[in-house]
Amino acid sequence: MKAFSKSPTAAADEVEAARSFLARASVIIDAKLHELVPVETRAPTHLHQAIRWSLFAGGKRLRPALLLAAGEAFGATHDGLLRSACAFEMVHTYSLIHDDLPAMDDDSLRRGRSTCHVQFGEATAILAGDALQTLAFGAIAEDENLDSDKRVRVISELARAAGTPDGMIAGQCYDLAAESRSVSVQELETIHQHKTGALIRACARCGAIIAGASEHDIENISAYAAHLGLLFQITDDLLDVTSTAEDLGKTPGKDARSQKATYPALYGIEKAHSLAERACEEACAHLDRIETPTPVLRSIARFVLARTT
Amino acid sequence: MKAFSKSPTAAADEVEAARSFLARASVIIDAKLHELVPVETRAPTHLHQAIRWSLFAGGKRLRPALLLAAGEAFGATHDGLLRSACAFEMVHTYSLIHDDLPAMDDDSLRRGRSTCHVQFGEATAILAGDALQTLAFGAIAEDENLDSDKRVRVISELARAAGTPDGMIAGQCYDLAAESRSVSVQELETIHQHKTGALIRACARCGAIIAGASEHDIENISAYAAHLGLLFQITDDLLDVTSTAEDLGKTPGKDARSQKATYPALYGIEKAHSLAERACEEACAHLDRIETPTPVLRSIARFVLARTT
Repeated sequence: MKAFSKSPTAAADEVEAARSFLARASVIIDAKLHELVPVETRAPTHLHQAIRWSLFAGGKRLRPALLLAAGEAFGATHDGLLRSACAFEMVHTYSLIHDDLPAMDDDSLRRGRSTCHVQFGEATAILAGDALQTLAFGAIAEDENLDSDKRVRVISELARAAGTPDGMIAGQCYDLAAESRSVSVQELETIHQHKTGALIRACARCGAIIAGASEHDIENISAYAAHLGLLFQITDDLLDVTSTAEDLGKTPGKDARSQKATYPALYGIEKAHSLAERACEEACAHLDRIETPTPVLRSIARFVLARTT
Repeated sequence: MKAFSKSPTAAADEVEAARSFLARASVIIDAKLHELVPVETRAPTHLHQAIRWSLFAGGKRLRPALLLAAGEAFGATHDGLLRSACAFEMVHTYSLIHDDLPAMDDDSLRRGRSTCHVQFGEATAILAGDALQTLAFGAIAEDENLDSDKRVRVISELARAAGTPDGMIAGQCYDLAAESRSVSVQELETIHQHKTGALIRACARCGAIIAGASEHDIENISAYAAHLGLLFQITDDLLDVTSTAEDLGKTPGKDARSQKATYPALYGIEKAHSLAERACEEACAHLDRIETPTPVLRSIARFVLARTT
């Protein structure tokens, strides 16, 4: 229970430290993303506008920031981490664009603005998502700050975490298959481990891999991030129940209306809260097994937990 | 005019040689694709069925065969070429699945069977295409028969050829923007160079790159393949005009009905034929600049030309 023995002030300080780290990380990630994605004035302009519309919609950059934080903890510099971090954000954004499509979740609002297909049409939204995935892999392959061995290792991690049968696309399938019917706790966990967990876990792993961390440390970072991913999903589900559209930047209560499997739906709000606390605690317990100090990673877990309080 | 000085019998022999090469290549490519893609019985089964439905629909495997032919010409073995070849086929298949979607070309028939979204639903078809792209990059990243330097080079070539602003996705945007209005010769060429040409060219380049060919040879192989891609597009357009659904395995005359920009529409059938002959000739002229003998690559150009006669 080490992670929870701190005073409320200390915990608030950690949340503030994470907020500050994330804000700084966002700035450098956004700058690099601007560099990696074709400018809007370049043909085909409609496509590049659509890509940028979704990529620069005010996302929190949690995934790439996590990659930076994990890499920095083990001594990597921004130079070696930034392209990989951006690649993960591009894959995350592509998945949001495709998830929002009429044939999928049919969402019209995301991060406080129209979704890509509402703004640019469905065909362009499909292609913008496709292109972001392609750009992500290309960005890592051409990263001159990493040797080729590390590039292929990061690409392999990204592909496994984003794909099927162990990654995000498989999770999206499980999620679609679970709509409009009741799901077990086991199924809910499978959905989230694949849909959101795998990519978050791979972000943290890749930071450690780029930094040349030991296998022992990479495994503990993976376990930390697996619990962080769960924590993130629970708090996301809770926010959907408890927030207004303005707070959330997307249509709230949508999960309940579409009978989506969520933690509050399955456990109730109170129990979902305590599951979130437990996930934060377990994430931090894995950090305790790493010799290198990891205050930023710890503060990120605290920050995610604090989203719902 | 060396390429055309042969007797009709010699030309027929070349076509036969290509047919035989492509048939043999198909078998080993299909075997490797079966290995690289999750089995249908693995969860999520619906997704893996959809992926396999489209990937094993009887495609000609022209792109991966071209990669093998180019690689073999410069002395590479199948072991070093096969995963990359399969990756290009996966990207090609993903693009067909997404192109066929209702929001795009809205096609219900492809290679003689229902398109992916007709068979498995639109959401699964989007995800199957997404997953094939991911699997493609992962397959190269984890290719133990190639050193890491070559893997990242092939991944970079694939990403550029499949993406935007210089590749396939950009081409698909240009194509969509050209529907239902008249296009210039220049625009038609831009569409095809991006939409189909870039990927075909990259296949041939990657074969040569994996084999360790010189930059001079890689450039000539690129130029050969650029003309081959044009040749392929013209003959494809011609087949759409002159074939029945049974011959074609997809809805014929569809290009004309949707007022798609095509070579026969812009030039007439006869002139399109002579443009195809010219493209074949120029492709072969670039092969003449390579010291290594390239009979298979030459025969493939002959074979593509012969599709319409």
